[in-house]
Amino acid sequence: MKIFKEIESEVQSYARSFPCVFNRAKDEFMWDEEGNRYLDFLAGAGTLNYGHNNDHLKANLMKYIMEDGITHGLDMHTKAKGDFLNTFNEKILKPRDMEYMVQFTGPTGTNAVEAAMKLARNVTGQQNIVTFTNGFHGVSLGALSATGNSHHRDAAGVSLNGIHRMPFDGYLGDGIDTTEYLDKVLSDSSSGINSPAAVLLETVQGEGGVNVASIEWLQNLEKVCRKHGLLLIVDDIQAGCGRTGTFFSFEESGIKPDIITMSKSISGYGLPFAVVLMKPELDQWKPGEHNGTFRGNNLAFVTAKDAIDHYWSDDVFSNEVKAKGEYVKEQLIDIVGQYGEGNFTNKGRGMFQGINCVNGEIAAKITKKAFSKGMIIETSGADDQIVKLFCPLTITQENLEKGIEILRESIKEVCSKEGDIPEEKLYFQD
Amino acid sequence: MKIFKEIESEVQSYARSFPCVFNRAKDEFMWDEEGNRYLDFLAGAGTLNYGHNNDHLKANLMKYIMEDGITHGLDMHTKAKGDFLNTFNEKILKPRDMEYMVQFTGPTGTNAVEAAMKLARNVTGQQNIVTFTNGFHGVSLGALSATGNSHHRDAAGVSLNGIHRMPFDGYLGDGIDTTEYLDKVLSDSSSGINSPAAVLLETVQGEGGVNVASIEWLQNLEKVCRKHGLLLIVDDIQAGCGRTGTFFSFEESGIKPDIITMSKSISGYGLPFAVVLMKPELDQWKPGEHNGTFRGNNLAFVTAKDAIDHYWSDDVFSNEVKAKGEYVKEQLIDIVGQYGEGNFTNKGRGMFQGINCVNGEIAAKITKKAFSKGMIIETSGADDQIVKLFCPLTITQENLEKGIEILRESIKEVCSKEGDIPEEKLYFQD
Amino acid sequence: MKIFKEIESEVQSYARSFPCVFNRAKDEFMWDEEGNRYLDFLAGAGTLNYGHNNDHLKANLMKYIMEDGITHGLDMHTKAKGDFLNTFNEKILKPRDMEYMVQFTGPTGTNAVEAAMKLARNVTGQQNIVTFTNGFHGVSLGALSATGNSHHRDAAGVSLNGIHRMPFDGYLGDGIDTTEYLDKVLSDSSSGINSPAAVLLETVQGEGGVNVASIEWLQNLEKVCRKHGLLLIVDDIQAGCGRTGTFFSFEESGIKPDIITMSKSISGYGLPFAVVLMKPELDQWKPGEHNGTFRGNNLAFVTAKDAIDHYWSDDVFSNEVKAKGEYVKEQLIDIVGQYGEGNFTNKGRGMFQGINCVNGEIAAKITKKAFSKGMIIETSGADDQIVKLFCPLTITQENLEKGIEILRESIKEVCSKEGDIPEEKLYFQD
Amino acid sequence: MKIFKEIESEVQSYARSFPCVFNRAKDEFMWDEEGNRYLDFLAGAGTLNYGHNNDHLKANLMKYIMEDGITHGLDMHTKAKGDFLNTFNEKILKPRDMEYMVQFTGPTGTNAVEAAMKLARNVTGQQNIVTFTNGFHGVSLGALSATGNSHHRDAAGVSLNGIHRMPFDGYLGDGIDTTEYLDKVLSDSSSGINSPAAVLLETVQGEGGVNVASIEWLQNLEKVCRKHGLLLIVDDIQAGCGRTGTFFSFEESGIKPDIITMSKSISGYGLPFAVVLMKPELDQWKPGEHNGTFRGNNLAFVTAKDAIDHYWSDDVFSNEVKAKGEYVKEQLIDIVGQYGEGNFTNKGRGMFQGINCVNGEIAAKITKKAFSKGMIIETSGADDQIVKLFCPLTITQENLEKGIEILRESIKEVCSKEGDIPEEKLYFQD
Repeated sequence: MKIFKEIESEVQSYARSFPCVFNRAKDEFMWDEEGNRYLDFLAGAGTLNYGHNNDHLKANLMKYIMEDGITHGLDMHTKAKGDFLNTFNEKILKPRDMEYMVQFTGPTGTNAVEAAMKLARNVTGQQNIVTFTNGFHGVSLGALSATGNSHHRDAAGVSLNGIHRMPFDGYLGDGIDTTEYLDKVLSDSSSGINSPAAVLLETVQGEGGVNVASIEWLQNLEKVCRKHGLLLIVDDIQAGCGRTGTFFSFEESGIKPDIITMSKSISGYGLPFAVVLMKPELDQWKPGEHNGTFRGNNLAFVTAKDAIDHYWSDDVFSNEVKAKGEYVKEQLIDIVGQYGEGNFTNKGRGMFQGINCVNGEIAAKITKKAFSKGMIIETSGADDQIVKLFCPLTITQENLEKGIEILRESIKEVCSKEGDIPEEKLYFQD
Repeated sequence: MKIFKEIESEVQSYARSFPCVFNRAKDEFMWDEEGNRYLDFLAGAGTLNYGHNNDHLKANLMKYIMEDGITHGLDMHTKAKGDFLNTFNEKILKPRDMEYMVQFTGPTGTNAVEAAMKLARNVTGQQNIVTFTNGFHGVSLGALSATGNSHHRDAAGVSLNGIHRMPFDGYLGDGIDTTEYLDKVLSDSSSGINSPAAVLLETVQGEGGVNVASIEWLQNLEKVCRKHGLLLIVDDIQAGCGRTGTFFSFEESGIKPDIITMSKSISGYGLPFAVVLMKPELDQWKPGEHNGTFRGNNLAFVTAKDAIDHYWSDDVFSNEVKAKGEYVKEQLIDIVGQYGEGNFTNKGRGMFQGINCVNGEIAAKITKKAFSKGMIIETSGADDQIVKLFCPLTITQENLEKGIEILRESIKEVCSKEGDIPEEKLYFQD
Repeated sequence: MKIFKEIESEVQSYARSFPCVFNRAKDEFMWDEEGNRYLDFLAGAGTLNYGHNNDHLKANLMKYIMEDGITHGLDMHTKAKGDFLNTFNEKILKPRDMEYMVQFTGPTGTNAVEAAMKLARNVTGQQNIVTFTNGFHGVSLGALSATGNSHHRDAAGVSLNGIHRMPFDGYLGDGIDTTEYLDKVLSDSSSGINSPAAVLLETVQGEGGVNVASIEWLQNLEKVCRKHGLLLIVDDIQAGCGRTGTFFSFEESGIKPDIITMSKSISGYGLPFAVVLMKPELDQWKPGEHNGTFRGNNLAFVTAKDAIDHYWSDDVFSNEVKAKGEYVKEQLIDIVGQYGEGNFTNKGRGMFQGINCVNGEIAAKITKKAFSKGMIIETSGADDQIVKLFCPLTITQENLEKGIEILRESIKEVCSKEGDIPEEKLYFQD
Repeated sequence: MKIFKEIESEVQSYARSFPCVFNRAKDEFMWDEEGNRYLDFLAGAGTLNYGHNNDHLKANLMKYIMEDGITHGLDMHTKAKGDFLNTFNEKILKPRDMEYMVQFTGPTGTNAVEAAMKLARNVTGQQNIVTFTNGFHGVSLGALSATGNSHHRDAAGVSLNGIHRMPFDGYLGDGIDTTEYLDKVLSDSSSGINSPAAVLLETVQGEGGVNVASIEWLQNLEKVCRKHGLLLIVDDIQAGCGRTGTFFSFEESGIKPDIITMSKSISGYGLPFAVVLMKPELDQWKPGEHNGTFRGNNLAFVTAKDAIDHYWSDDVFSNEVKAKGEYVKEQLIDIVGQYGEGNFTNKGRGMFQGINCVNGEIAAKITKKAFSKGMIIETSGADDQIVKLFCPLTITQENLEKGIEILRESIKEVCSKEGDIPEEKLYFQD
């Protein structure tokens, strides 16, 4: 631990919540150097939908490295890239009747968002992009303007421009469809919010507090976009890759985004990787206009292809995720019913759910308590007041139940003897 | 090739120069699917200083994956990270008497630059950052403001602010020290360029055309920064990791940058990875202020540590690189002398050298000709007029000579029968 | 007319609506070169609240010029300035229990707004200012960001930053208090709208369409400002100087703005003049920080003092204006009742009222028809759909009745034989 | 004086240098309330080129007011405007072979600059405008970006964008033509300074320190503009209206600016007034795009016309100004020779001259000493180190000599017994 104190920057964050040195991980478990095992309900903040070091993907990855497959080839054509594109086209796009061009950006979510925003602005010739309260899209300067969180925004050091902020679904209270407000300002030539390039949103806001856009709201939003000529950009970095039960988070709504950003679990193995999908007519990029050294991570091509082959060749996995999501919902409703008393509510969709606590202190006590019981789980939301359940989608039913049990116990203890968190850890036994 | 035409975005660039599908690479060579071998004088634009799939690094990487070491752990402490930090501290920082904190940003160079700019702005409370003509620092919005290239800047779709552009060393002609101009505007309260946060520069501008800042200019620049309280940020993403003969590109000058950005070859294996080094008193980050899903790529920690152990435990590698650099310089002077006639000049430092052609068309013909002879080599500069020699530093003397021979032949042919490029390829024989 | 076509820029606007050459004006009348008389229901867009060339002010103005009083003295102390300040303090500020410092900015409304925005940003250290849908604050770059009108915004040529746009009173429909939405985003640390410097608003939006903020809404807005530490800036340039019945438009609400901008009728005689009032603790200007050649127009000091002496020494004038406002309201309700049929509604407060037409074409026909009958009256609103009654406050009851009669006739004719506007003019007879 | 302390904002500046209350002015003299007379070598910072309350203009102004000519008519056609336009066209534009459209902006210099910048940006579709070190163009947000002075820039409260700052003539030292640097960055596609809309400059920088652009430099600058398609905007607000000896300051150079801004002395009488001249093909304004309540000050039309008639119908006045300028130059050279000793140098052109002191403290002592001797004179420059001679152009030779004598005496006393400034004032005797 000494070296981290000595020379790793103060910017570290998760390391503060989970003060161990981890050295091994498999599926839904992580181990620290002392051999303690932890059930991972954070899963790389949605990067490990298929678990840690998934064996279905690992073999081919090792074979590829062993045989000196291209590791780094800038954006040159490689066999690994071609294979990924073919699989992605055949098993993801075509079955969903989606026709999109694929751009490999720098291998981070924020870089994909930067590219999407650039493209929308260049294609439309407009500068402003409509984003929503509590949205989170990354922290490089372009994406950061779209992000709502003041902790991150205040670090910009310069003003964050080019964004019109609108209230997300539900923000103005029940019964108010905020797309009507958007429609009004776009129709009003002196609203001060004229002719944006695009609307950029998450269908379920992760960092913003597990806020779910309803199917109807998404459909209305698409209508407003079409009416006023705005591009519709779905940032599916956290909600995509099966997290809500379908590969893309918006499938149930039937909307057809113009641009889609993906990252996190798209590589399947936790490797840095990001893509932007755009309708063919929007692919107006000039060669190399948006570039970067690591665009198209070849090791990620290999695992991304295998992940699609293994989990998305048919409906089995999707149905399992949906079933687990239902189970989680039932359990959370039960927990909230038991300990709620006005302090807890449940929110979310599919395997993207959370418990909204009355404040961030309670939520922090719960996650700290859970960690002492051998579970890694984090909070989100403006005040970190949401305990966010984000385990691998591949988790066994048994471990899912164990995890929820730990959560239930943690809440129980926090509610009964608030503030009294025992220091001894009760780790899972292998 | 079909799938690339079908669904890969028009944004692709290197793929256009080298229209093959590559499937294997080792050290200084790449192979395409048809078995043709290419001598790589591009080396991932400086990402593969130790060659493709370097065997010294490969074994540990495979072992780590095999044993289910942490692949993705957000920014949690991991054994791989700790091992890297220890090695980096003991073998890189301490021997150079450098005391810095290490930040793991998103694993792209542009993200490291974004973090460095944020930090400089936040620590100083000033918004503007001085950057230089022909600088290249990445294309996410913050870094893009610092980048000079109009092809990339024009794609922003919004205005690029927060930058004061100054002439780089040599830009105003021989005999004019442009740091004096900087000193003057900083001393003049009505110059319109007051109190920037920092100066951001590459010591050798890569994309900008292999422009070398002289040792004296760097020292004067540091003096101007100290006089006016500006932070000095060296973007050592392309010039660092041994490219100029020393680990950091600025070692010979003796300057002590306040912030240093690294990426490209820092992982040693072509894996996405980036770090920001900052003097301890500047590490004023709040937890998670600059975050990102893939900060701290654990596979890269493994190879980065091994690369340092193998190549930077003593002076042997550094001296080899310097010697190769001298050899390249001699050869380029010879080539320029032979075919120059006012059309070619040589520029660069260490293994970061190039031939400045009278225009971009000639340069393109040369690299195309070289490709037809089995060599991958690219251009840089505002008009793509520089043929940039960027082979792995680990290249054998024999292959270095072969590469230069191909280059010499290509120039010869372009000069003798300009425009007449034979289609048949004369690949290297294995 | 020839010279105007020849060398006056296309930017001219009112000249297009009223294609005459005017050469004389008195009180509520203007005359063109051909001797035609027009009843002025535009009154310099609110600059001539006391009518054209008001005789009560004219004598002193002429005397001052005759005696070579200071015409231009930069911002030096002059007797005329001192006299104005004394009168303004004794007859306007003190009786209303208002303690403010007075800044003389460049003699335009937009310049006063620029100064107010600068001050708010500097005092708070925050950049963003909350403004409202349909607000109009001027067209120099700083003020233009606050203005909602896209016709003017699109002319900026650069992006307009530093503003958060919020819905004005009534914008989200009846029953929704938009200050609650403001309160929510200010309370929410990830709303994307954090810690603005100030709120800037007109209590009655003129150019935006005669939109009236209710007393309760103003009071709630002040509460939200106090709760979150935002400065409250009232732009009283058009609604102030008695237009709504009291000197300041917000008097009835009891709110205490931190900063107030005034211009238009403050000089009383149509002379360029503008002031910013700020609470004493906010007067943190450094000498000359906001300067300008014509700040403090001395001729305007003379007439501004006389206007206050004459009209604001007691309640008589204020009560007259209120009575006239009531009369106008009754008449408009009557007209709307007669010709409304869903096409017309009345809006406004005091002598700041208008008729909202179903679209801009109808409104244009009405004002054109009125002009043919010898009345100058204009439209406002996003679609120019509001016929705005803006006659001098000093208008005689007889002429006020005549004006409304012309308006009634014009509406009647437009409704009966829409599109058929006779070319012959029926001017007022002297 | 009490009221100024009580309720006038701290922003006041000139009032601090000249702590009197002025109540009368004529030609080159001002009087305070106590009857003391001051010789005015500040002249409204160039607004009173024809002196205070010029009798040639005063009579018509009074007659116009007396007869109830239009005082305020928004931008409607008026007889006064037509008369001004005709005179301006016949006596200023046509004789100089200049074809320009005339725009009446808000009656401040900064508003004219805002309009010019908007127009340039809109016509070209480019955002950035090249401006120069030490330039001063006003303090509303758009113009402020172009202004170099940090005292004013720091008050913006937001970042100042859309400007590329270049070194003015002489800034990089003798023998360096800074237009070559401009040419280079415009020719270099990765200079980071590509395709600006326009170049904006003063031919003699007033506030920046009486820096004179040479004829040759202006001509070269025009060539660079033409070569790269940039519009050339001359801000002639301070240097125009005869200050340098010709009506426009650039006449001698023969350059043909695309856009010209004028204000200050254009009304001739110190009345707020500003115009923008643009080549006919650039007049692409849409109706009312740049508007404002006081655009086209009718009282100013009257005096502006008379000023042109009286002073610019032939060459007499221009020749007188040139002769006075020569006289001033001789005297300054003499003074500098006598008291210079490395501490003083003279600079300037025509009646726009100054003495550059070794620092601002000396300059302040000189102007304070001069004020004690009955002369109003101010400093300019980044460190207020220039004593700026800015008397009315109509000053009698006798008073010009007196003024220079006072200046000479003041310098002599400051040099002999530095710091010892007697408090008694030695006013001019009437």
